[in-house]
Amino acid sequence: MVKINRFYDLLPETYLFQEVNRRVKTFKAANPDVEIFRLGVGNTTEPLKPITADGLARGVQKLRDVKTYSGYGDEQGNEALRKAIAQYYNERQVTIDPLEVFVSDGAKCDTANLSSIFDIGSIVAVQDPVYPVYVDTNVIAGRGGRNIHGRHMGILYMPCTPENNFAPSLPGLHADLIYLCSPNNPTGTALNKEQLKVFVDYARAQKSVIIFDAAYEAFIRTPGIPHTIYEVEGSEECTIEVNSFSKSAGFTGVRLGWSVVPKKLVVEDGGPGKINALWNRRQTTFFNGASNVAQEGGLAVLTEEGQREVKELVDFYMGNANIIRRGLVRTGFEVYGGVDAPYLWMKTPQEMKSWDFFDKLLQETHVVGTPGVGFGSEGEGYFRFSGFQHRDIVERAVESIQNKLRL
Amino acid sequence: MVKINRFYDLLPETYLFQEVNRRVKTFKAANPDVEIFRLGVGNTTEPLKPITADGLARGVQKLRDVKTYSGYGDEQGNEALRKAIAQYYNERQVTIDPLEVFVSDGAKCDTANLSSIFDIGSIVAVQDPVYPVYVDTNVIAGRGGRNIHGRHMGILYMPCTPENNFAPSLPGLHADLIYLCSPNNPTGTALNKEQLKVFVDYARAQKSVIIFDAAYEAFIRTPGIPHTIYEVEGSEECTIEVNSFSKSAGFTGVRLGWSVVPKKLVVEDGGPGKINALWNRRQTTFFNGASNVAQEGGLAVLTEEGQREVKELVDFYMGNANIIRRGLVRTGFEVYGGVDAPYLWMKTPQEMKSWDFFDKLLQETHVVGTPGVGFGSEGEGYFRFSGFQHRDIVERAVESIQNKLRL
Repeated sequence: MVKINRFYDLLPETYLFQEVNRRVKTFKAANPDVEIFRLGVGNTTEPLKPITADGLARGVQKLRDVKTYSGYGDEQGNEALRKAIAQYYNERQVTIDPLEVFVSDGAKCDTANLSSIFDIGSIVAVQDPVYPVYVDTNVIAGRGGRNIHGRHMGILYMPCTPENNFAPSLPGLHADLIYLCSPNNPTGTALNKEQLKVFVDYARAQKSVIIFDAAYEAFIRTPGIPHTIYEVEGSEECTIEVNSFSKSAGFTGVRLGWSVVPKKLVVEDGGPGKINALWNRRQTTFFNGASNVAQEGGLAVLTEEGQREVKELVDFYMGNANIIRRGLVRTGFEVYGGVDAPYLWMKTPQEMKSWDFFDKLLQETHVVGTPGVGFGSEGEGYFRFSGFQHRDIVERAVESIQNKLRL
Repeated sequence: MVKINRFYDLLPETYLFQEVNRRVKTFKAANPDVEIFRLGVGNTTEPLKPITADGLARGVQKLRDVKTYSGYGDEQGNEALRKAIAQYYNERQVTIDPLEVFVSDGAKCDTANLSSIFDIGSIVAVQDPVYPVYVDTNVIAGRGGRNIHGRHMGILYMPCTPENNFAPSLPGLHADLIYLCSPNNPTGTALNKEQLKVFVDYARAQKSVIIFDAAYEAFIRTPGIPHTIYEVEGSEECTIEVNSFSKSAGFTGVRLGWSVVPKKLVVEDGGPGKINALWNRRQTTFFNGASNVAQEGGLAVLTEEGQREVKELVDFYMGNANIIRRGLVRTGFEVYGGVDAPYLWMKTPQEMKSWDFFDKLLQETHVVGTPGVGFGSEGEGYFRFSGFQHRDIVERAVESIQNKLRL
C-alpha cells in the first residue's frame, strides 16, 4: 500500500503562474477580441543573436558526422564549457577552478535540487518576497511545515520592504541554508558588497550555507555592485552560486545554467571538498548532463563576440525596464527595481491587494503583471512587471496603463 | 551548523562507470600505444540520421526568428510532442491521453526522480542485477539503509538469474515501489506479457506502483513481446512508464525522454488523477522543461520518416549485438540477451569475479566491458557487453576476444 509524499499537501493549491494563466484565459474567453499585453512572466521574447544561434547550429551539425558525434557527455558538463565558465569568473577577478563548475539545464533546477545534499532537518531562510521555487522545493522535501496565512511555519522569512531598501535583514534565528537572489526576482534589488558581506559573515559564523542565485547578474548596471558573491571575501567557504544562460543569452527554452560549488566550502560535518563531492555525486546519479547542443551554444555565448550579443540583449530588455519604470512613475506609482534588474516592483495604488490589482489591471488596461503576494506575504500589496517583452508591446502596455487605469 | 545529507554515506564510494573509467585510464597510462575497444557503456556512437538532425536544426532555426522564437515552454513538454508521444502509444493499440505524457530530459532523470512523489517510507523492490540509478537514488532519499556485502538492507532485491530465465520472481515481502526494466539493462532480457502480468496483478493486489523503464523498447525483435507495459490489462491502474529518445534516435547527448503517468493510477491515499497531479507538481516545481531544440528533434523522430531512421539505427546496433553474441558463443561463453536488447550478459569463465574478468579482458584483449557485479550482487560472476559502438570496433573487439583471451 504505497503512500504519497504528504509534504506536497502542504503546498498552496496552485503554482503562481498557473493561476495567472488561468485568470488570463478566463478573461480572454470573455473578451475574445481584446489584445492582451503580457508583462508578467520573466520569459525572454527576442530571437537569439547570430553568434549564439550559430553555436547551437554547430552543436547540431556535429551530431550529423561520425567524427564529431557525441553521446553522453560528463554529467558535470563538457570540459571546454566548464573551463569557459571558470574563465568568466576569472575575468571578474574571482578564481574558480573548472572542477568547481557544474553545468546544468538551468538555474531553476539547481536551486531546486541543491538543498537535497543537505540534512533533511536543515532550517531554511528565504527572502520575502521570493522566487517560489526555493520555498516549494523545501516544503516538498519536508523542511517547510504547515502553511498558515501564506507562510510555512518551518521556514525563516527575511522581509524585503521599502523600510530596508529590500535588502533582507539577517534571520532572527539560526538558519542552515540561506537563499539569496541578487539582482532580485521579484523586487529588482541588487545587493551591494557591504550588504552581501553581512550574510557571508553570518554564514561563516553560524556555519551555514548560502545558496546564491545570480541568474540576473548580467543585468547589473551600477558600477561596484558585485556580479558574483565570490567578490566578497570568505564567501567561497560558505556559498554555492547558481547562474544561467537563460535570461542573458535568450536560453530560457534552450536550458543551460551552472552552479559553482567551491572546494573550500565547509560545513559542520564535511571538510573542504566534501560538498563539491556530494553535488558531484548528486548530479552524476540524478542527472545526465545538459544537452550537448545547448552546451555548444553556451560556449559560443562565452566568446568575446557572444558576450557582445549578451550585452545587446540585456541592453534591450533593460531599455524595456526603463520604459516601464518611467511610465509607472509618471502614473504616480511607487516603483522599485528596473535599474540593475529586468524586474520592476511597485506598490499597488490605494493599498489594493495584489490579486485585486491584477484583476483591475487586466480588466481596465489588458496588461498582465504578476501579483506580488504570489512571491510571499511581504509581497502583498505589491506587483511585479517584467521587462522581458517585445518593445512595441511594452510601449503600448505602458500607454494603456497611463491612459486607461482608473485611479 | 548545516549538516549534510548523511544518506549519501550509505552509497558505495564510486559510481560504476567512474570506476571503469578509472581502470581504463590507469591501463592506458601504462600502455599508451595500445588501442582500447570499448564495449562497456550504453552510449550511442552513430551520427544522427538526416530527418532527425533536420528536426534539431529546425529547432535552432526557429530561435533565430522573432516570429518563431520560444522561451520557456510548458514544463510538461510542448503540446505537439505530448500528442505525438500519445499517438506513438495509440499505434500500439494503447490509449494514452497527451495529458498523461510528461516530456523530460531523459529516462535517467525520470527514473531517479519519480520516487520523490511517494512516501519516504516506501519499500522499494528492484531486479538484481539492476541499473544502479534506481537503487542509488532511493538510498539517497533514505529508503535504502546500510549496504552490507553489496546489498542495501532496506531494499528488496528480486534476483534475475539463468534459473528463472532472468525474469524476476515477485518480492517475498510487500513492496510499495517496484522498478522493472524491460528489455533489461543489464541482462538484455525482455519480459513477455505473462511475465509482466504477474507483476501487474501483484501491484494491483498489493496497491503498489510499478515504475517501468522501457528505454530499450525500440530494440525488441521478437513478435509478441510487449513494447509497453500498458499492453497488459490493468497496468494503467498501477504503472508509471518511462521511455526515452536516447538509444533509439541517438539522443543520449541531446537529452529527451518522457514518462506516462496514467490518470487511472490509484494508490492507497490517492484516487484517480492524484499521482498524475503530483508528478505535474513535481515537474513544474523542480524542472523547467526539456530543451526546445531537443523537443523539435523529438517531433521529427516521431514522424513516419523519423521512425524509419530509428529502425535503421536500431538495426545497426542490433547487428553489433548479434556479432558480439556469436563471437562470445563461439569462444565458449554462456551468453544471454542481445536478441531483444542491445546488451549481452555473459557468465565469466571459471567462475571468475566480475572485476577480475574486467581486468583480464582489458589486459589481454584491450576490450572494455562492464563488470556484472556493478549492477548488483547477483551480477557477480557476470559481465555485460554493449552493442553501442562502431561496427569496425565491434568486429575487432570480438576478434581480439576470440584470439587473445587466455582461457
